[in-house]
Amino acid sequence: MNIINKINSPNDVKKLNELELAALAAEIRAFLIEQVAKTGGHLASNLGVVELTIAIHRVYDTERDRLVFDVGHQSYVHKILTGRREEFDSLRKLGGLSGFPKPDESIHDAAISGHASNSVSVALGMARARGLTHQDYNVVAVIGDGALTGGLSYEGICDAGESGEPMVVILNDNGMSIDSNVGSISQMLSRLRLKPGYLELKRRYRRTFGKCPRVYNFTHRIKEWLKGRLLPGNLFDDLGFMYLGPVDGHNIKQLEAVLTWAKEQKSPVLVHVVTQKGRGYSYAEEKPEIYHGVGSFNTDMGVSESVEEGFSSVFGEELCKLADSDESLAVITAAMSAGTGLSQFAERFPRRFFDVGIAEGHAVTMAAGLAYQGAKPVFAVYSSFLQRGYDMLIHDISIAGLHVVFAVDRAGLVGRDGETHQGSFDVSYLCSVPGMTVLCPSSFAELREMLKCALYLCEGPVAVRYPRGGEGEYKESSGACPAICLREGADVTIAAYGTMINNALKAAELLSSAGYEAEVIKINRINPLETDLILQSVSKTGLLVTAEEVCAHGSVGSRILESCARRGVAAKAKTLDLGSGIVPQGSIEELLHSYSLDAEGIAAAAKELISGAENGGTNEKAAT
Amino acid sequence: MNIINKINSPNDVKKLNELELAALAAEIRAFLIEQVAKTGGHLASNLGVVELTIAIHRVYDTERDRLVFDVGHQSYVHKILTGRREEFDSLRKLGGLSGFPKPDESIHDAAISGHASNSVSVALGMARARGLTHQDYNVVAVIGDGALTGGLSYEGICDAGESGEPMVVILNDNGMSIDSNVGSISQMLSRLRLKPGYLELKRRYRRTFGKCPRVYNFTHRIKEWLKGRLLPGNLFDDLGFMYLGPVDGHNIKQLEAVLTWAKEQKSPVLVHVVTQKGRGYSYAEEKPEIYHGVGSFNTDMGVSESVEEGFSSVFGEELCKLADSDESLAVITAAMSAGTGLSQFAERFPRRFFDVGIAEGHAVTMAAGLAYQGAKPVFAVYSSFLQRGYDMLIHDISIAGLHVVFAVDRAGLVGRDGETHQGSFDVSYLCSVPGMTVLCPSSFAELREMLKCALYLCEGPVAVRYPRGGEGEYKESSGACPAICLREGADVTIAAYGTMINNALKAAELLSSAGYEAEVIKINRINPLETDLILQSVSKTGLLVTAEEVCAHGSVGSRILESCARRGVAAKAKTLDLGSGIVPQGSIEELLHSYSLDAEGIAAAAKELISGAENGGTNEKAAT
Repeated sequence: MNIINKINSPNDVKKLNELELAALAAEIRAFLIEQVAKTGGHLASNLGVVELTIAIHRVYDTERDRLVFDVGHQSYVHKILTGRREEFDSLRKLGGLSGFPKPDESIHDAAISGHASNSVSVALGMARARGLTHQDYNVVAVIGDGALTGGLSYEGICDAGESGEPMVVILNDNGMSIDSNVGSISQMLSRLRLKPGYLELKRRYRRTFGKCPRVYNFTHRIKEWLKGRLLPGNLFDDLGFMYLGPVDGHNIKQLEAVLTWAKEQKSPVLVHVVTQKGRGYSYAEEKPEIYHGVGSFNTDMGVSESVEEGFSSVFGEELCKLADSDESLAVITAAMSAGTGLSQFAERFPRRFFDVGIAEGHAVTMAAGLAYQGAKPVFAVYSSFLQRGYDMLIHDISIAGLHVVFAVDRAGLVGRDGETHQGSFDVSYLCSVPGMTVLCPSSFAELREMLKCALYLCEGPVAVRYPRGGEGEYKESSGACPAICLREGADVTIAAYGTMINNALKAAELLSSAGYEAEVIKINRINPLETDLILQSVSKTGLLVTAEEVCAHGSVGSRILESCARRGVAAKAKTLDLGSGIVPQGSIEELLHSYSLDAEGIAAAAKELISGAENGGTNEKAAT
Repeated sequence: MNIINKINSPNDVKKLNELELAALAAEIRAFLIEQVAKTGGHLASNLGVVELTIAIHRVYDTERDRLVFDVGHQSYVHKILTGRREEFDSLRKLGGLSGFPKPDESIHDAAISGHASNSVSVALGMARARGLTHQDYNVVAVIGDGALTGGLSYEGICDAGESGEPMVVILNDNGMSIDSNVGSISQMLSRLRLKPGYLELKRRYRRTFGKCPRVYNFTHRIKEWLKGRLLPGNLFDDLGFMYLGPVDGHNIKQLEAVLTWAKEQKSPVLVHVVTQKGRGYSYAEEKPEIYHGVGSFNTDMGVSESVEEGFSSVFGEELCKLADSDESLAVITAAMSAGTGLSQFAERFPRRFFDVGIAEGHAVTMAAGLAYQGAKPVFAVYSSFLQRGYDMLIHDISIAGLHVVFAVDRAGLVGRDGETHQGSFDVSYLCSVPGMTVLCPSSFAELREMLKCALYLCEGPVAVRYPRGGEGEYKESSGACPAICLREGADVTIAAYGTMINNALKAAELLSSAGYEAEVIKINRINPLETDLILQSVSKTGLLVTAEEVCAHGSVGSRILESCARRGVAAKAKTLDLGSGIVPQGSIEELLHSYSLDAEGIAAAAKELISGAENGGTNEKAAT
């Protein structure tokens, strides 16, 4: 680690010679493997962009120029090169280095990212702001071929292509989303990669740029001739971009030359860079999808491939069972096949498994088409990604009253992926969709039950929401009732749903040790919400604590209070939730603790109410 | 009207000869002009698809085959041909014929539409359901070139292109969204339309199909040769569709031939049809954007082009004033330049006016890019269309705390456009976005004030929401306070915001005549919501009526009740809103009346509370 340790800013990268650059790339790979093995994080995508990131930092000045990463999990190399190498021990930890770009963290991070396909739009806005604010900077977006399957990227490219704004979009093409990439875009890119001109182009680049470093002096005519010969019209040309590539994404010199050229153009340019995901770590090269996002692991042994049992795997398993006896059942994922537990389903039922790419809006609307004609679609999707489908939920599903099941995974806190990935909004937005039933299993058994209920007993749209990870001590199934009393008590009512019920029950035990008996109500169906049982209990205890991993607006707690007011049930209450701000990264345990959503926090809130020492603090939090 | 009067189903269309078809087309145009002049509705787009719709009904059987209209305002001809001619007097009226396709209305209407760009996704789902449910039908989607600018259509095309599912997408290319079309897709289509092969293709079609009706026997080789010669690769080829066209969209015979051919293919086919918006009505041909959606008019005189004063026009006017003294102010529209009152701005400040096409998600994210770099973006958008940008509001704007202003037009009831267009969700979804300020002007003066406040006093994201149409009797500006008491009274508290304040004040007068004095609180800022003034009043009166044109979930009324519960303020309450269902079409007055949101309804609710005759009915509506 002779060179990496001397790199404290991109200026240090600019000073290196060719040999030193190669050594730096190797050292960065070693550093990434070692660090991510310790902390967990995104590995394969970062191993793939080592040379690309180095080249970008040699061509651009990211203090002034704006470098926008799409998704952003591939920004580790960028962070290493921009003075954050020593913070990697805190990666993805509470208060530590983010696993995604974060403008608050560094001037070199131009924009928030996390969700796919936004980079071209952000970059175009930045390019347009140049003129309006009389500034001078270059804009470059780095987008993967997976993110290119999202409609937002197309909207951005269409607008940018017409705008004529000078900006460079680097297409980092590794043939992968998180799983292997799908859709016709992916097929088009394969064709581009394989077309006969590719090798010829590489040779020309080598010949030309090798001898003449001032490549940007290439005349317009020669460039056009080259393009015309080697690069027949493709989608990017059609959409107004000058297309350059494909370029070997692991050849720093070639990348530098092409980027330098692209930067000088007075129009939108797309540079098609071909990289290998996982490059330089044999395990990751072989199975890049396994090394996309990992926990800590032993670098010699690689990551364990066994799938841990959790809500996702149980969901996938149960769905296979149901599909065995129901031919009309169809399953949709938006590029999250493994993440949502569907690998087995995909293998067993390929003809009714639809991976639509990173296109959640389309997934919802396509499900509508299936449902119109009598199929039974299940769309498995992460809570924070389904936000992309909000309009489609209302417009394409709800208005027609279609029976579509949404398996909302990663609902609630997700932990280390942080701000952009927390599943804290779905309770609010799902319950606003007319006719939407929302079921919240607390255990694997309940997930199985509720999935069957959603498919065969409910009408209209139904969401079954469950968290990342596994079940807790509560393993029963409480049946089909909208809510159930799990523990009786006269001192205070605690209401919760999903796996939060474990903390509620533990809190009740803590309270019991202190001499107070809590009544614990478990809510199974949060929409439509039936508050009878809860209000009955509150009428008895006079005190209410609710606990949930959701934003305050539209929370179940707020709706219970509304119901109290309507029915004239007086209650002193504390609604514990994630508040009305943005939820940071951290372990789920740490976050639960910091929002008073662990057993201790819930018990403390109950005690405050009981002791009458309640001063209106937490209680009032979401009042306005 | 000899022929049209005999058309009671598509079978009647199939029986006509060439001369009769031409006559039918002329009669349909006359009928459309006469009817829309009476009832108002969408005219130009329907005049453009007369021949296309006739051809579709001669080739397909829409009782079995699934015909999916994108947006759907171009479905009038389809409605005429499928037995609904006589219902046109009720078009867009309460309980009458919908201006959009509606499966409840006819077996011939395959899917809900209203928002753009969903048709390919819906059609693909339907195509996929064929296999799963062992059915046999054809699927055809009709999408305009405007809707093609939406990312959802791209997601659908990518997935369909790879799927290989037999389906036909008819691209109805008239070079228009609602305003003239923008973006690189539009430029690409222009190139396709103008390319030298077009006329040659037309001649070949005529020669070939004219002599040989069994066109689908064309060998694959000849077809490929034709394609290779005349239709060099374009975006649709790249995305896996067989591209046919361009075809003259006003030549029924040619259309029939091409559609018959397309229908027989065992793969996704895109038929590029060139039509003229407004065709056959000289006024509409000249200014199709004026004749897109119209009120009733005199057919000889045409539509009056004078822009009525309303919130949209006042917004546009004020924005021009502000832009005069602020160079960093930039304005974004998603293909709704005229609708949002921005025509003047577009003319005066073309360099900072960005029409991004029907791409609300991109509009939000592009605004983020502008804001990151210090420009002041204002995105003017209809409430129901901004639903498409929900994730981007959270992910791209809110997490970064960016200062972007959203001018949310058509907030609340929109009236005759019905279910898909009602602006009933924005209060719920906007208030869930962390850091979002939501201001609600009640008058033009307040719109001006609040726009300035949003741009120059607020931080972070700010929405200024206002309704379709104009102001009522309330014309003052109540200043910068979050809420204000407009009328004092001891008997009941009425709280409202936006133009609903007019009905609240009128209700207070009605109550006064009956001997009761209502206290009327006008809320200016609904997020963050400050309930002090309201709760003070409720503490005095003990009775609360809230009135708002929004869905029940997340309504301001429900949040006030929540606040009552938290603060221990006992109140008998009636929260009047649009409930938890879908809001139908009808005049705004009719709808207000049916939801008890007119002055009479509000007064009646107050009286019920006052007289203690309240039986928990309305009050409990949204309680669960």
